Amino acid sequence: MTDNTWKYENFEPAGSAIGYRITKKLDEVQSPFQHIEIFETTDWGNLMLIDGAVMLTTRDNFLYHEMMSHPALFTHAEPKHVVIIGGGDCGTLREVLKHPGVVKAVQCDIDEQVTRMAEKWFPELCDFNHDARAELLFDDGIAYMKHCEAGSIDIVIVDSTDPVGPAEGLFNKSFYESCFNALKDDGILVQQSESPLVLLDLINAMRGEMRKAGFTTFKTLPFPQPCYPTGWWSATLAKKFGDFTFRKVDARAKAFDTKYYSADIHHGALTLPPFVAAALGE
Amino acid sequence: MTDNTWKYENFEPAGSAIGYRITKKLDEVQSPFQHIEIFETTDWGNLMLIDGAVMLTTRDNFLYHEMMSHPALFTHAEPKHVVIIGGGDCGTLREVLKHPGVVKAVQCDIDEQVTRMAEKWFPELCDFNHDARAELLFDDGIAYMKHCEAGSIDIVIVDSTDPVGPAEGLFNKSFYESCFNALKDDGILVQQSESPLVLLDLINAMRGEMRKAGFTTFKTLPFPQPCYPTGWWSATLAKKFGDFTFRKVDARAKAFDTKYYSADIHHGALTLPPFVAAALGE
Repeated sequence: MTDNTWKYENFEPAGSAIGYRITKKLDEVQSPFQHIEIFETTDWGNLMLIDGAVMLTTRDNFLYHEMMSHPALFTHAEPKHVVIIGGGDCGTLREVLKHPGVVKAVQCDIDEQVTRMAEKWFPELCDFNHDARAELLFDDGIAYMKHCEAGSIDIVIVDSTDPVGPAEGLFNKSFYESCFNALKDDGILVQQSESPLVLLDLINAMRGEMRKAGFTTFKTLPFPQPCYPTGWWSATLAKKFGDFTFRKVDARAKAFDTKYYSADIHHGALTLPPFVAAALGE
Repeated sequence: MTDNTWKYENFEPAGSAIGYRITKKLDEVQSPFQHIEIFETTDWGNLMLIDGAVMLTTRDNFLYHEMMSHPALFTHAEPKHVVIIGGGDCGTLREVLKHPGVVKAVQCDIDEQVTRMAEKWFPELCDFNHDARAELLFDDGIAYMKHCEAGSIDIVIVDSTDPVGPAEGLFNKSFYESCFNALKDDGILVQQSESPLVLLDLINAMRGEMRKAGFTTFKTLPFPQPCYPTGWWSATLAKKFGDFTFRKVDARAKAFDTKYYSADIHHGALTLPPFVAAALGE
C-alpha cells in the first residue's frame, strides 16, 4: 500500500460515507467472527475497522466511551456491579472503572481478537484491564446475560457493533428480557443506538423491544462521534422502574478527568432537539 | 455517470472525508468565482458542492442554518437590522426572517450563481427571498461591510465557505474591524467557525483577530452537522461590549418552528465540552 491513500466506509443504510487519509496498514486478523484491520492515519492516530466498518480511532474514541458510561453511572444511585456486553476495545471498561464506587465490571465480548488488537494498537484504552475489579470474558454476551443471576447487576452497557452480524441478537426482546432479569429493580440498561439523524426508526424499534421486555422509562442522549456514520451518535438508557435521576452534584464533583463528558454536557444531552423528540414521541 | 456512484470530499486539513451515494448530477455552473455542482443523492435529497467541497444537502442543512441564526437573534436584545455576508443559499436568511422583529435583512454574497442554484434545487430555503424585509445583493462582502454606515447594524452573520479562496478575506482583523464599526454598541458578530474537534487552532486564531478588531466577548456554540468535516461544527459569536444575555423566555415562546434549535438546545450549547473549553482558554 502506498503512502497517503484514502480509505472509505460506505454506510449503505444512510447513503453516506466516512473516510480517512491513511499511511499504512499496521495489522489485520481474521477471527472466527470477523475481519479486524488496523491502519495508521495521518491525523487520527490508529484506526480499527471490523468487516470494513470503522470501530474507533485514537483521536475521537473518547466521545463514545465517555457517553456510553458516565451518563448511566451518574444516573444510577449507587452503581457497584456493571456488565459490558461487547466493548472488546476496553475503552468503556476504562471509563466505568474510573468510578471508585464500582466493585466489579465484567466485559463480555465474543471476540478475543478485538481485545488483543486493542492492547497492541490502543494500549491507552486498556489501562484498567488488570484492575482487580475488572473481569474480561471472551464469550457469547447473549448467553452470558441469560445465565446471569437474577437481580444481581446495577448497569448493563451494550457496547456492540451495528445490528447486523455477530451483534444482531443484541437488539431484540429476548436479549432485553435477559438484561431485565439480571438487573436489580433500580438497574439501568444502556445501549449504543446509532445516528439520531438517520436511524430514528432503529431507535424507536429498539425502545419498542425494550418496552416489550419490561423496561418502562427511556432516555436517548445524542453526542458527536466523527468516526461513525453522520458524525452524530446516541446512547439509549432504559430503566426497569421509575424515573431517571441525574446525580448532577456528584458528576460535578467527580475526581477523575474526562475530555467530553461533564455535568453540563450530560444535562444538555438530556434535552433532545425538537425533530428527534417528535420522532421518538417525547 | 452511472447510478449509485459514491462521491467523496477529502478534507485535507483534517485527513478525513465525507461521502454520499449519488444517483446523478443535476446541474453545474462555472461562475466567475467558483465551480458549483448539484447532485441528486439516494438519502440526502440534493447536494451542492462548491469547488468539490460539500456546501449543503436538503436533509441536514437545517442544523447549520438554525444554529447560525437563532442563538444570535435570541441573544441580542432587539435585533432589527441583520446583515448576512455569504449565505448565498438563502437558508440563513430564511431563519433570520422568521423573527417578526427583524425589520431588514441584507444578504450579500459575491456569487449570484449560488443563489440561482439554490432557487432551482433548494427552493424551500428561498421562502423568504421575496419578503419585503429581504435585500439580496451580489457583491463583495468585504467592501459591503467596509462601507456600511457606522453603528447601523444589530447582527452580522458571516455565513461563508472555508477560509480559502473567495472567503479568505472574511477571517482577518481588517474585515472584523469593518464589522465592529458597522455594528451598534450592543451588536453581535456571528461566524461559522469550523470543526471544534479538529480546527480548534482556527477558532482560536479567529477569536484572536476579532479581539484585535475590538470585540471583547466570545462564545463558540458546537452543533452536529453531518455534511461538514467530522460531522461536528460550530458558530462563534462575538460582542463589542458586555456579556451575552440569552433571552431564554423569548426563545421558549417563539412563534415559529425549528427542527434542531430550541431554548434548551441553545442553553446546552453554551457550555463547551472540557477539552474544547481548555483549548479556547475558557
